[in-house]
Amino acid sequence: METFSSKLLQAAVEEFSRLPGIGRKTALRLVLHLLKQDQETVARFSDTMLRLRQEVVYCRQCHNISDQDHCEICRSPRRDASLICVVEDLRDVIAIENTGQYHGLYHVLGGIISPMDGIGPADLTIESLVERVSEHKQNISEVIMALSTTMEGDTTNFFLFRKLKPFNVKVSVIARGIAIGDELEYADEVTLGRSIINRTPYENMITK
Amino acid sequence: METFSSKLLQAAVEEFSRLPGIGRKTALRLVLHLLKQDQETVARFSDTMLRLRQEVVYCRQCHNISDQDHCEICRSPRRDASLICVVEDLRDVIAIENTGQYHGLYHVLGGIISPMDGIGPADLTIESLVERVSEHKQNISEVIMALSTTMEGDTTNFFLFRKLKPFNVKVSVIARGIAIGDELEYADEVTLGRSIINRTPYENMITK
Repeated sequence: METFSSKLLQAAVEEFSRLPGIGRKTALRLVLHLLKQDQETVARFSDTMLRLRQEVVYCRQCHNISDQDHCEICRSPRRDASLICVVEDLRDVIAIENTGQYHGLYHVLGGIISPMDGIGPADLTIESLVERVSEHKQNISEVIMALSTTMEGDTTNFFLFRKLKPFNVKVSVIARGIAIGDELEYADEVTLGRSIINRTPYENMITK
Repeated sequence: METFSSKLLQAAVEEFSRLPGIGRKTALRLVLHLLKQDQETVARFSDTMLRLRQEVVYCRQCHNISDQDHCEICRSPRRDASLICVVEDLRDVIAIENTGQYHGLYHVLGGIISPMDGIGPADLTIESLVERVSEHKQNISEVIMALSTTMEGDTTNFFLFRKLKPFNVKVSVIARGIAIGDELEYADEVTLGRSIINRTPYENMITK
């Protein structure tokens, strides 16, 4: 443990060190950076974190992070409300939004079924998804499952598929295949096999 | 630029991204971590940074970061006030304190003479060091220069040596156990500690 000539400095370094992936040297570097900024800059930094934690809420419909009862995506009239894309957490929402390829709504599960980590269906927003589909089933054309292509993702896909079956809504899973830019010879056999089974008409490729 | 469903979230990610070495993905990870903490934890984080910037002062004697007019090291009766160790910045103070090999006082220059970066003697606390040595010369047995073993460090050593010569105070340089070209803050503690024990009279340096 370092010796600091200032208790304020020590406290600040300790706060930063508690963040994931931030060691004590990095924490000190960040603190010294903040010290060099003017007071308003640091006040804004400080206030932003406080407000974030105190004021942020979760969308009542899709459980995405939000500033209001319903998030900006759920409120937007430009989004296709007949599509629901089911994701694990909000990082996935951001990743999909960044593709610019999806214009429907989301449903954030808040995790993935993982018995090893003690996460079961009751820990996720699955009941809320079932209610949402049940309530709006006339207006929902498709539920797209965009979960990780892991065993936990597959388990969750299977669980959701069975839960949604009674509502006669189309349920799809994002395509699994060779990543763009990857060389075929380095792809694993399971992915390569799946990409052959789920091959796409060439027309779909060029008219995307 | 990512699309966020919450302006609070976006603001928080942007604040973290402004810190050095923190990209947008890391910023998002840190923000999501803070969101998972309870309100008191985030309030303490926020408050610590604000207080750090607002309340921190610099020691009037050694220019180290401090909570009061004089820092804890300068105030301590257990420190040997006859020794002054001249360092570039407070990271070096922390590094030397961590070796447990030094029990004197410090003088923080606030940088190093570097014409390439436009930093001259007047930008540093050199005048203050000269006054300090002049004022306490009866009680000062040695000034130890612990600067980086770079060209800029050598230039600064030479400049300080000439400035301090009139006071007939012993001036030494930490031993070159540290590889030439390495920066002080990255040196391991054993090497750094050894280099303080084996400090060399400045004359030995220039006749090598």
